[in-house]
Parts: sequence; structure tokens; C-alpha cells
Amino acid sequence: MIIIDRLTRLRAEMKKRNIAIYIVPTADPHGSEYVGVHFKSREFITGFTGSAGTAVITMTEAGLWTDGRYFVQAAQQLQGTTIELRKMGQEGVPTIDEYLRQTLKEGEILGFDGKMVSGKRGESFEKIAQEKNGSLYVTEDLMDLIWEDRPEISKEPVRIFDMKYTGKDTSDKLADVRKTMVKKNADVHLISSLYDIAWLLNVRGGDILHVPVVLSFLSITRGTCTWYLQEELITEEIKRYLSQHEIQTKPYDSFYDDVKTIPTNQKVLMDRSVVNYRICNDIPTGVEVINAPDPSTQMKAIKNEVEQENTRQAHIKDAIAMIHFMYWLKTNVGKIPMTELSAADHLAHLRADQEGFLDLSFDTICGYADHGAIVHYSATPESDVELKPEGFLLVDSGGHYMEGTTDITRTFALGPITDEMKADFTRVFRAHTNLANARFLHGCTGFNLDILARAPFWEAGLDYNHGTGHGVGYVLNVHEGPNAFRWKQSPGRSEGTVLEEGMITTDEPGIYLEGKYGIRTENELICRKGEKNEYGQFMYFENITYVPIDLDAIAPEQLTSVERKHLNDYHAMVYEKMSPYFEGEEQEFLKKYTREV
Amino acid sequence: MIIIDRLTRLRAEMKKRNIAIYIVPTADPHGSEYVGVHFKSREFITGFTGSAGTAVITMTEAGLWTDGRYFVQAAQQLQGTTIELRKMGQEGVPTIDEYLRQTLKEGEILGFDGKMVSGKRGESFEKIAQEKNGSLYVTEDLMDLIWEDRPEISKEPVRIFDMKYTGKDTSDKLADVRKTMVKKNADVHLISSLYDIAWLLNVRGGDILHVPVVLSFLSITRGTCTWYLQEELITEEIKRYLSQHEIQTKPYDSFYDDVKTIPTNQKVLMDRSVVNYRICNDIPTGVEVINAPDPSTQMKAIKNEVEQENTRQAHIKDAIAMIHFMYWLKTNVGKIPMTELSAADHLAHLRADQEGFLDLSFDTICGYADHGAIVHYSATPESDVELKPEGFLLVDSGGHYMEGTTDITRTFALGPITDEMKADFTRVFRAHTNLANARFLHGCTGFNLDILARAPFWEAGLDYNHGTGHGVGYVLNVHEGPNAFRWKQSPGRSEGTVLEEGMITTDEPGIYLEGKYGIRTENELICRKGEKNEYGQFMYFENITYVPIDLDAIAPEQLTSVERKHLNDYHAMVYEKMSPYFEGEEQEFLKKYTREV
Repeated sequence: MIIIDRLTRLRAEMKKRNIAIYIVPTADPHGSEYVGVHFKSREFITGFTGSAGTAVITMTEAGLWTDGRYFVQAAQQLQGTTIELRKMGQEGVPTIDEYLRQTLKEGEILGFDGKMVSGKRGESFEKIAQEKNGSLYVTEDLMDLIWEDRPEISKEPVRIFDMKYTGKDTSDKLADVRKTMVKKNADVHLISSLYDIAWLLNVRGGDILHVPVVLSFLSITRGTCTWYLQEELITEEIKRYLSQHEIQTKPYDSFYDDVKTIPTNQKVLMDRSVVNYRICNDIPTGVEVINAPDPSTQMKAIKNEVEQENTRQAHIKDAIAMIHFMYWLKTNVGKIPMTELSAADHLAHLRADQEGFLDLSFDTICGYADHGAIVHYSATPESDVELKPEGFLLVDSGGHYMEGTTDITRTFALGPITDEMKADFTRVFRAHTNLANARFLHGCTGFNLDILARAPFWEAGLDYNHGTGHGVGYVLNVHEGPNAFRWKQSPGRSEGTVLEEGMITTDEPGIYLEGKYGIRTENELICRKGEKNEYGQFMYFENITYVPIDLDAIAPEQLTSVERKHLNDYHAMVYEKMSPYFEGEEQEFLKKYTREV
Repeated sequence: MIIIDRLTRLRAEMKKRNIAIYIVPTADPHGSEYVGVHFKSREFITGFTGSAGTAVITMTEAGLWTDGRYFVQAAQQLQGTTIELRKMGQEGVPTIDEYLRQTLKEGEILGFDGKMVSGKRGESFEKIAQEKNGSLYVTEDLMDLIWEDRPEISKEPVRIFDMKYTGKDTSDKLADVRKTMVKKNADVHLISSLYDIAWLLNVRGGDILHVPVVLSFLSITRGTCTWYLQEELITEEIKRYLSQHEIQTKPYDSFYDDVKTIPTNQKVLMDRSVVNYRICNDIPTGVEVINAPDPSTQMKAIKNEVEQENTRQAHIKDAIAMIHFMYWLKTNVGKIPMTELSAADHLAHLRADQEGFLDLSFDTICGYADHGAIVHYSATPESDVELKPEGFLLVDSGGHYMEGTTDITRTFALGPITDEMKADFTRVFRAHTNLANARFLHGCTGFNLDILARAPFWEAGLDYNHGTGHGVGYVLNVHEGPNAFRWKQSPGRSEGTVLEEGMITTDEPGIYLEGKYGIRTENELICRKGEKNEYGQFMYFENITYVPIDLDAIAPEQLTSVERKHLNDYHAMVYEKMSPYFEGEEQEFLKKYTREV
């Protein structure tokens, strides 16, 4: 089997270098969540195609650590590979660090590619090796030696986003960053986050599938800004644009050399939990590192008025595609042939028909029946099944438009469903709407609010094994921090981010019954300021997803009167906003599916 | 005026020593919340009698920082003192540190008594002085020089609590602490928290009003345990008891000398946010300090089976007193003379009638009409008012019994109330019951759950300016960490404590309308384990306060059907548990006030 063969070749290379354990994370040199094809080492060595996971390989064992979203998928894909699935967060499953401590023997060598691990993570591996009087091997990417037809590093063209789309000039953004540098007493600020670089420079690219970023580094001083990118990409237009904003360019790889020459009297602001271990180690001893999140991370999370208004427009376009899809799906299922893949394809085409459409914002999750229970299911020709006029179809999808990025999940009843399915669907809606309609004081974080969504599950002894929501990038990564809704505080993970006006977060509770079905309902919410009074500044959410929630699966009598009002108010808003874009049968359909219950 | 005179004398002493700013916290050398009379320096210098606040005095200004519970009371008590009230957490009010940074000039001296400030807090003052190239003056208590009739340090007798009350032997508790010391690689563990010392040694005293602790320090090594206390207190019985458990004693004051002689090869475990600045500074350079919460703090928060069962018994006794009081109050108001003070006194006698009663657990808050809006109101002969058969009386009270400590708040309608008052009372109950009936996964902290209580307020643009609940000590401080319900995470403050089985926390939302009335409803909840399934360990609360919630003030139509069920279930439980202790008219009364609505 191909994976076993790859493991054998990796172990041969490990043996040559005396490496006892080799770690292959899902990573690129920039701490990206999704990675370009060149960087898909973890997928190459395990066969597991999910977006998150870490492989740990010894001479006799191989393990893949991944989270709750992927337990079912990983279990399937690892069959026959000899790689053991390690379900993160489950009782009795050691963390990677615990496993390393148990497994690494006195004096042994722990290996990984130092570019593929953050400074902070690298340090924790360093500590484990030290405890065993062992050492690290980090200066070589062993994958390169065994991956014969490895794809080249991507070099997609760079596009400039003008003020109509960004609402704020690059020079103004850089000025804001420099203000924070002054406040923090930093001389140099190194950025390796591709999202932050694209946002700061008002450029977009295409170096990661569905994530329109430009593979590059950025170095900002009080007076200069240097963009390290693959120089073939610099057209005349880009050159002019950059010189307008006093941004110089250098070759991508020279960043690694330049950090070695930072003068020791300089103070460097950078985020050691993003910047890779190799860079962190190459900064000269004596240079003071101010370890803090990139200032741009918080700035880009707070969408300005232009970004907010554009995003609403993007959601209208997205809703047009989704409502066409819903009509097509529910009207035709059982009458014309359709499968998970063909339905996803149809939806992609409907999105692509919209003006300003750029790309899907991630691989569409289109999971029928039991496939819906696989949280990040991605249909393949092998797994694809026909859609029948019964049961649930879960569709989690989104698009990048010039005006913004969308992320929406709807679960559709394709025909008869059981009372249990209705009860579960209704519970998911209750969870969703209770969070979406929260009123709260400024100062709250996602930790404070998550239980509003989870309570309807917890009161019934149920739960979903993922966060309730994530921040959404603006024509960038569909998953963007620091705002989020989740309840678990991990030790060492940053404190919760206060929800600020202009932050956009998804609200997507779900329920997953392995082997049966999955249900998730997801809208996006803009955080807005409400009343300010003697108690403080109250906040609320504006719901910016305009697509019906399938009433065929709602049991109205299981809603409280408040929840029922929320459902009816939401549907009235959807009809008002979306009906002008439809006519005839489709408009009737929309009317029916936004009716008062 | 007396306060102005005291300030003048303090400033004279400050001037002699060239101190520009002097800080007087509410403190004793042990980081206690409430302090013995000898230590009430902040009250002495400001006239403000509340339990929390810090005075900051310069040659020309004086300010008192206190929190939302005390805004109204402090404003009243500071009138005419020249001391400005600084409302903590209000917009535009500088924090103490901000004020010091604004006010302390280059090279000036900042003063406070180093014994009255934690090591951690002292360090932050140190930093401010350093920023201004100034210095600290911390080795003298200036209060001692100007406070002529200062009370002596308390020396109340020590009482041994046997296994029937504690459920766990002192030697076993010390063994548990030593296990943590081994894990943390500590040679010495210094404890200055009076609560932790009393819990660990299974002793109780009376050195703080309503807090049965023994003024002392404790030093634990792998093989020894030394109790530093006022040696006059050591009777023959105590001597025997201590020697049984291999605990030696030394004079209270010698603790300060002994810390100076800790060998430099030793590792000392102590909590720098509790241990005072003087001690922290006296530990020899070279001694490694492991700064962490006292292991006993978490241990004592998790009540064992004996403590839990005893506490239920204490709550039954307390409920007997409270129900007698409720009957007396509601039957007699307007017919016989009663005031806030006489009602509180009557209640105190009813508690004292219970077998095993030791003391009130804090000064009873008995606030009629607008006094109810003063969160920690304590009636004085000057403020005392007559109770009339109309409006609300808020009574927050509790007792220490041999079996445990109680804390309960009830608000009673003494006669006709308006619809607005009913709506507010009903909202308070909704808040209370939604938290009390939470089902949640193990791992949740008070930060996750607080919003369940606050949502009914926030949805109406209201709030209450205090936490929703606090841990309760076992015949110790009625406020005991680390468990709590609150929503705001303060930077630097510890992460939330996971709610563990056996922790007891109050649930006490309220509403306070200045000049009108206050409403609070408070029960105590034991955290219990519920179902364990594939989603994890579910938890719930057992309500251990058995006193009716005044149905005269409830508007049942404003409750959801779930909330109404919770109210009826609670009252059915109260009647079942408490009716055997009453007969005749009182039993009829109890039946009426626990009826289904």
C-alpha cells in the first residue's frame, strides 16, 4: 500500500540521521490553517485529507492526531495504513506532548522541519528533547527527499484591492500598525501571517486553494516596509502601486537571511505562535523580541463600514445562489438524478453566476444521510452517493466575492423524516437562534456566550464536538481569529477576545449521529453596538445570512414563544430582502419557506 | 470633622518621611477579605465602613476606590470628608495604578505598610515607583502613629473540629498537600491564608468578626509542619492535638524572622498574590519561589461527603430560622413596631436558637425600600427606618453552624407593590433559576455559566453590578474562592476555575434602583455529577437553600413554562423538606407560600 511504502522510505531517511521520532504537522512556513499543495506533507505521509492533524512517526509506530470534526473521516482514510488515529480531547488519548514524553528515550533525536512549526511550538518540542537529554533535528524537510512528484510552490498572480473594497488605504493601515509599534517600543515588526500581509497591503492572490493570499513575508520598521515575495509576480502595475505606498520588495527566500542581520540594539515585535521556529532561532542573540499578536490581527477582525456593507452585498449574492439551489434541490430530488458531488457542483455553478464571484471559500461539504455526521465531509467519487427523496442533506459552503466572503450551512429535508430528526433539527435551530439574538454587555467574549447555543443540547445530555462559531475573513481565510464562540479555555491559549463592533462571527451549532445523519445550521453575525446606558454599552448581532431554514424539518411546538418569534422574524427579513431577486415559482417557493409558523 | 483631622495627622507623618502618596488598603497581613478590628486602618482613615476599598492619600488629595456594591454607601459616608469616591470600573475613573502613574512625580516616594499588601500587588507599586525613578517606603505602619485608641490584635480561643465535622483528618490533609509539594518539587510551603490554615489544621477561632479563623502562619516542609500563632492560645488540649499530628508551634511574629533564614538551596511554594510583600521581600535571594495558589485552596473548595451532608443540615437549621422570620415579618408588619435593625435582630435570635449555631456568617443586610438598593447596606441607628406594610425588604444573611456556613438572600413584599416591582422581582427569579437549573459539561467555569443568570437582565438593557455568585467556606469565610459565577475576565486575574463536584457556590442575581428599591434572590448550589456519556461528564446543581421565594411578588405569566416548572418544583421540595419542622398557622403559611402557581 502506498502509505506504508512512504512510511518505509521516511523511516529509512530517519534512520540515516538517527532520528527516533519525526513530526509532520499540517503546516506551511506561515502558520496557515489551510496550506498550498506543495506543503501538504501530512496528507502525503498519512493519506488523511482533512484540514487539520499532525502525524508522529517512530521506527515502529505512526499516529495521526486530529480533532472531533475529523474522527469519522480520519478513521476511514487511515484504514490499512498502519497509522493509528489519536482522537484529540478524548479520555485516555495522550496529547502529542504526552506521547513524545512517553516515547522519546534518553538521548534520542526528535525531528521536524523547523519551518513548519511555530517558534512557540518548536520550543515545547525543544523542552521535551532537553528533558530526555536528547536533541532536535530541524534543518531539513525529510518529505522533500521521499516525495518524488511534489508540486512546485504556488505563484499565483497578485490582485490589488482598491478602496471601494477595502475602505482603508494601505498607507493608513501601515500607519496604524506603526502606532502600535511605537506604543510597544518596537523598531521592527515581522509578519509571516499571509492573511495579515494581504489585508495590510490590500492585495489578494491565490497561493492556497480557496484562500486568496500571496506567499510572502513582511518586515515593517518605523520608516520602511519590505515585502518578501516571489519576484516573478511583480508586474508593472504592482510595482507602481507599491512605490506609491513606499513599499519595497525583496525575494521571498531572502527573508531568512535578513532576519539573521537584525542589529542587536533593535526590538522586534512578532508573534512567536505564528512565526516559524527557524526564523525565531535565526534572530541574533541580543535582539529583544516582543512576543505579541500582530497588531493587524485585531484590526482586520474589526470590519470597517465599507467592509461591512460590502459583506452584506456578498451575502445577498450568496443567498441568491443558495435559494436557487434550495428550490432546485427540493423540487427535483427523486425526479432527476443527483448525487452529493453533482449537487455541490450545481451549487458552485450558481455561485459562479454571481457578479464579482472569485472562488469558493472552501471545499463544499455536501453530506447526505450518514455522511452528514462527518463534520468536515468532502465527497469523493468513491464516497459519492445518490440523493433520494428522504432524509437530510447537510450543505456547508461559501464563496469569495469581490465584496466579501461567505460561509453558510443549511440542512435540507429531502423528503420524509422521523420525529426524532425533526426534534434534532429544531434543537439545532433553537441553539442557533438563542445565540444570534443575544443581547450582552460590551466586554463579553465568545466564552461567555457559547452556552446560549449549547444549552438546548446540554439540557438533553447532548453536545457537538466543535466550537459554535469562528471569525470570518474578508476575501481571506474563511476561518479568521481572534473572535470565536467556544466554551473550553485551553491552558496557555489566549484569553477570550472581546466581541467588538464590526467583528463577524459564524453561529453554527449542530448534531452528528454517526451512521445516521448530521444537522448543522450556520449564519454569519455582525457584532453591533446597541443601547448605551448606566449599565454600560450593550451589544447585539445583526444576522447577515439571508437563506430560509428548512421549515419542513421544524417542529414549531418544540420552540418557546420567543424562539418561534425569532424564527418568524428571521424569515420575514429574508423574504423582504430576497424576494425582489426571484419571480414566479421560485418566489412562491421562497414565500412558502419563509412563512410564519 | 474627625476624618479631616486624621488625614491632617497622617499627612504630617507622610511629610516627615517625605512620602508623596500613601496607600491604605483594606487588609491584614494574611490577605483576608474581612479584617480584624485592629486592622481596620482604611475605615479609620476614611470613615467608610464597607468591606472593600482602598484609600490613596497625597498631600492635597484623598481618594477612596471601591466597587459597585458600595457606590451608594460610600458616597454617603464620604460626605464632608474631603475624600473623593472613585467608582471602580466606571468609565472615566482611573484605576489606582493609573492614578498613581498620573500623580507620582519624578523621584517621589510611594508609601504603604508592606505587611498589608500582597507580594504581587507590592511589585506593581514597585514598578510604578521605578518608572518615576522614585522609591517605596514600606517598613512602617503610619496608621499606628496616628491611631491612638487602636484596638489590640485579637486572640480568640482555638476550637478543634473533629472528624464528624470535617470528614478528613489533619494528617491526611497535610499528606495531600505534601503530595502536591512533591509534584511541584517544593521543599517548603508557606501559607498565610487564614482560611487555608484553619481548614488544613481542622481548627477554628474567632479573630475576625464572623470569620472563625486563627491569626497565624503555617510552614510545611516534607517532614515538618510549624504553626506560628499567638502562643497564649495554646491550651493543653490543643498541645495534645497538635502533637498527635506532629505539628509544632512557634510565636506568631517569629514567622517574619524565620523566612529570612530559609536556606538558598530550598524551593518555596507560596502564593505571591496572598503572602504579604514584606515576607516576599524577606525571602533570601537565591531561594527559588514557586509562585502558585496554595494547594489547599482547591482542596477546601471541593467539599467532601461529610461536609456536603453537614452543610445540608446547616441549611435546614437556617431555613427553620428564615421561615419563622418570614412568617413573623409578613404576618406582623404594620401591626407591631419593627425596623430594619429590630427585624435583623429578631432574625439573629431565631438563628441563635438553632442547635450548633456559632455566629452569623456576616453582618445581616436588612434594607427596606430604597436601602435595598445599597448592595451591602448595613443598618445603623442613624440610618434605621421603620418597616411599613408596603414595598420590599431585602434581607441577606447567614449563619455559621457546627455543620456549615449559610448565605441566603430573600426579598419580601411587605404589602402592596407595583407592577414594575413585580416584573423586576420575577426577572430576578428567572435569572436565579436559569442558572440553578443549568446542565453543563464538566470543564465549564463560572465565566461560561454566568450569562444564564444575566440574560434576562441584558435582554432588557439592565444589569447588576456584582458577580452572580461566590464560593462559600465551610465554617470559614462566607466568600471563598476559587469557584465563582462572574462574566468579566480581568486581565492578569486567574483563569476561571472549573466547577467540580462538591463545590458550593451562591446564585444571587439582583436589581438595584437607587432611591427606589433593591431585589436579590440568593440560594446556594452544590455542584454535582450527572450523566456521563459519549459527550463527556455532565454536571448539575443541587439547590441546598430551603426557603420560599415570596410568591406575593411573582408575576407567573412572565415566566416561561420551564421557569414556572422550576419554581413549582423548588417550592414542592421546600415544603416536603421543611414542613415537618412547623405546625399550625406556620405550617399553613409555609404551604401557602410554596403553593403551585
